[in-house]
Amino acid sequence: MIQNQKVIIQVMSLFEKHEELINRAISANKERTFYAAFPEHPSPKIYGETADKDGQVAFKKHLNSKFDELLQTGEQGWIGSEESPYLGSALGTTYPSFSVNQLTENGDKAFHAWRKVSPAERAGILTESLMRVKERFFELAYSTMHTTGQGYMMAFQASGPHACDRALEAISMGYEELTRVPEKVVWDKPMGKFNVVLDKEWVAVPKGVSLAIGCSTFPTWNTVPGVYASLITGNPVIVKPHPGAILPIALVVAELQNVLKEQNIDVNVCQLAADTHDNQITKELAEHTNVKMIDFTGNSVFGSYLEKLDGKTVFTEKTGVNSIILDSCDNLDKALGNIAFSVALYSGQMCTAPQNFFIPESGVKTPDGVVSFDDVVAKFNEQITGLVNNPKAGPFVLGAIQNPLTKERTQEASKLGETVLEPGVIENPMFGDARICTPTVLTTDSKNIDSFSEELFGPIAMMIKTKDTDESIQLASKLASEYGAISCGAYTTDANTKEKIKDAMSLSYTPVSFNLTGAIYVNQNAAFSDFHVTGGNPAGNASFTNSEYVSKRFVWVGFREPSKG
Amino acid sequence: MIQNQKVIIQVMSLFEKHEELINRAISANKERTFYAAFPEHPSPKIYGETADKDGQVAFKKHLNSKFDELLQTGEQGWIGSEESPYLGSALGTTYPSFSVNQLTENGDKAFHAWRKVSPAERAGILTESLMRVKERFFELAYSTMHTTGQGYMMAFQASGPHACDRALEAISMGYEELTRVPEKVVWDKPMGKFNVVLDKEWVAVPKGVSLAIGCSTFPTWNTVPGVYASLITGNPVIVKPHPGAILPIALVVAELQNVLKEQNIDVNVCQLAADTHDNQITKELAEHTNVKMIDFTGNSVFGSYLEKLDGKTVFTEKTGVNSIILDSCDNLDKALGNIAFSVALYSGQMCTAPQNFFIPESGVKTPDGVVSFDDVVAKFNEQITGLVNNPKAGPFVLGAIQNPLTKERTQEASKLGETVLEPGVIENPMFGDARICTPTVLTTDSKNIDSFSEELFGPIAMMIKTKDTDESIQLASKLASEYGAISCGAYTTDANTKEKIKDAMSLSYTPVSFNLTGAIYVNQNAAFSDFHVTGGNPAGNASFTNSEYVSKRFVWVGFREPSKG
Repeated sequence: MIQNQKVIIQVMSLFEKHEELINRAISANKERTFYAAFPEHPSPKIYGETADKDGQVAFKKHLNSKFDELLQTGEQGWIGSEESPYLGSALGTTYPSFSVNQLTENGDKAFHAWRKVSPAERAGILTESLMRVKERFFELAYSTMHTTGQGYMMAFQASGPHACDRALEAISMGYEELTRVPEKVVWDKPMGKFNVVLDKEWVAVPKGVSLAIGCSTFPTWNTVPGVYASLITGNPVIVKPHPGAILPIALVVAELQNVLKEQNIDVNVCQLAADTHDNQITKELAEHTNVKMIDFTGNSVFGSYLEKLDGKTVFTEKTGVNSIILDSCDNLDKALGNIAFSVALYSGQMCTAPQNFFIPESGVKTPDGVVSFDDVVAKFNEQITGLVNNPKAGPFVLGAIQNPLTKERTQEASKLGETVLEPGVIENPMFGDARICTPTVLTTDSKNIDSFSEELFGPIAMMIKTKDTDESIQLASKLASEYGAISCGAYTTDANTKEKIKDAMSLSYTPVSFNLTGAIYVNQNAAFSDFHVTGGNPAGNASFTNSEYVSKRFVWVGFREPSKG
Repeated sequence: MIQNQKVIIQVMSLFEKHEELINRAISANKERTFYAAFPEHPSPKIYGETADKDGQVAFKKHLNSKFDELLQTGEQGWIGSEESPYLGSALGTTYPSFSVNQLTENGDKAFHAWRKVSPAERAGILTESLMRVKERFFELAYSTMHTTGQGYMMAFQASGPHACDRALEAISMGYEELTRVPEKVVWDKPMGKFNVVLDKEWVAVPKGVSLAIGCSTFPTWNTVPGVYASLITGNPVIVKPHPGAILPIALVVAELQNVLKEQNIDVNVCQLAADTHDNQITKELAEHTNVKMIDFTGNSVFGSYLEKLDGKTVFTEKTGVNSIILDSCDNLDKALGNIAFSVALYSGQMCTAPQNFFIPESGVKTPDGVVSFDDVVAKFNEQITGLVNNPKAGPFVLGAIQNPLTKERTQEASKLGETVLEPGVIENPMFGDARICTPTVLTTDSKNIDSFSEELFGPIAMMIKTKDTDESIQLASKLASEYGAISCGAYTTDANTKEKIKDAMSLSYTPVSFNLTGAIYVNQNAAFSDFHVTGGNPAGNASFTNSEYVSKRFVWVGFREPSKG
């Protein structure tokens, strides 16, 4: 009993410690203008003079060794099959392995501990875990580079501050939803000659063990929103990373477990469930009766299978076909430079990367006259070539290719249209064995819709000649409705055309970035402002982070009783 | 153009007219203490000296005539098969009939008009429609009596003020969710030497044509939440009433169409889709590709079929098995009087009516000593008998039986246990031909779980002897988890037992009313305070009215563009 009291006091102080930050995040979620709780620049002034070097050293210690930081126990062995797309060799890191029964039983037991921790206490614990992760942003960056192939800057930002911002967004949205209904009220109903007076109370009862299935390209950014959304709403989580990208999220799980342990809470509230390419446990976990919720990022076939599982609440981000509509612009070179960067960034291995570029056969209107389809394509190729061949930019923007299949797909894309820019290889000055593939550009006609209606994951740009902008809009909207889309870019200087695009894309539930130039790209979705995936088209059924993303994870249950007076 | 401006001015004035009420409803939703926008007492002082008589006259005009108030056009014929459970004869009211293609095409066309009406304008229009319905509460009451068999008081309250309160609750919850994200912001991100500044805006894009499928017992109360939730979020609605209870909701649809017409908005934003017992169009409507959302109240088989339809957002209230746990109480007679009323009310034809009464074999603890199982049952029978045989209460509390099958089920319940109170018939002084069935009471043992694990819709009370209260709790929770439950009542004076009940029932996502006596019943769920159905057990996947109930009906879509300056 004294033990319990001690726990509560400790936990409450974590909430108090982070209360200001949590409230700021709740406000940011409402305001939706710029907010970042975790600075995105890997500056020594912010993170410390030795942070980068220390992070690199820490990362290297994981190579060819057991990842022994997890506090979950009872492992059946040590496994791991990660490979570095930069080094072309195995990391050699191994993780404890557990049976599906162990994981789900542990999760079920932890459920009954975690559900009784108050929302405020949970918010404090979870925010504290992000603060611990912040201390390891550079280690996380190198771990991300060498599993996903991301360039250094993206690996730092996406896996570190941007992921933590999205996690904090989920915490704050969850905390807001959980405190939206009062804990207790007196319900006083006048009945004429007397009043009926009831004490009423409400509890947000969590749904149960949650499974978070990670992807190989964004192992923390795409995983933490679901993990933290389930945790803040009282559900334990089993984190099942992609077998190719375990280390980044393992660091996060380890820090979560550290904070849980310190608070005397069952560390199995968040378990890591590592597996290998040859022996994946995802389906067995997903179908287990104890698993009540699933978060998934990955391919549409598996995502759709998960969505149809009986009696589970499932949140998916699947594949999509993202379009750029080119109608008219103030500065064509700047526009094409911006979208060329979007295609090259991380070699197009982003769910938000553009794939289909719709250009009217009459060309693109500019202040200097109409630029023909062929000239637009030629200028685009110049932008791509200039970027990838710039030794100060190319290798760092492209990064490396995570999955050999992505490189194959890019190399074989030539069958889909007329190749106007061949995929190639550039040298990475730091990693001679890096798996590299520069973007390929193809042209085709709008009538060949079969060649561009599926996601071509990787650095593949399809320049599609349309009858006119109306056809461009119609195709972008149709593909989004039928095959899904996570982003859309449009360039137009005409107000009516802009309205037409907004209306058509809103009906296919796809966000649109208009006229982007400079240092902001259609690929980027900012926490606290941009919803990531709308949930309204086949690219996924969930959205980071709308209210549903947290409210579907718990159930309001009311109790009432006549007031004692 | 001038025409359009005029429309907007008119519509905005409806929002302004009702803004205070809408804001009050939003606050009430948050506060969750007592609030009623529509007075529940059919008092002449509130509703006018002649309101009751006028309503009765208005109802009678519908008998044996065409219901010609709807503004939707193009009917293919006139149909109707309603019968009065009080009169034992057909109402003879007919409604225009439309093909499924007509209805869905009309709906799709109306979608593009309605989605462009602002949330505030929609809120004004919808609230105004409720004010028009209020003028017809008595006509609605008689229409409800003679379709559902409800007693006069329930018919007035449930179909009139209580239904309108729940509709207003849905409007206010929807309006709150729709205005939760700002329409526009300037996103200003410091990048070190410069800032990236974007104009961002968000639109709540509705999902499309919605289908509201009504039930025969609560034709407005159970239907309007879904209808108004879909409408406030921009979706047109096709209202498909139960063929046995069309008239009450037809009045509501007519008033909605009146307000839409006055505002020059397509009246097909809300269409009535009447059908007959012999020729039901529900499945064809539900499966139609244009139908994107479905609200349903009814049996579990059909509800589960709807939930599994591909690509639809479905909200269900299905069947459940509601329990009363009897452990100990301060005043057993008052407790049994309360639950006897709950069983007799509308002859148990409520989704919230209790069915299973768990009583320990050792009896129920009271201040006067332990009362044995048999004595509790005997006292309960006395309460039932006293109530139904009281000529001033019985006929009005029981009402009439809507569906002959309900009467048959009650009469055949004797095979499920030992009958300790036979179902019977009492006389209704006003309606000699009323279909009446008084409650039957059976006893059984907890081991005969098969006999009480399914919903026995109607006035059937199973008194179940358990080993102890722990077994009572375990059974109530298990049945709720496996077969669903919408309500639970418990009587205990022991704090630990109460906590145990709360914990067990929260894990089966079932609300609990403790120790009710006097003029408040486990059957009642009040708008703005009690969630109706939790959505967490097999009794249904939706809840009146949590945030999900409205947020699942639209999708946030964002647009962004570099700021011009």
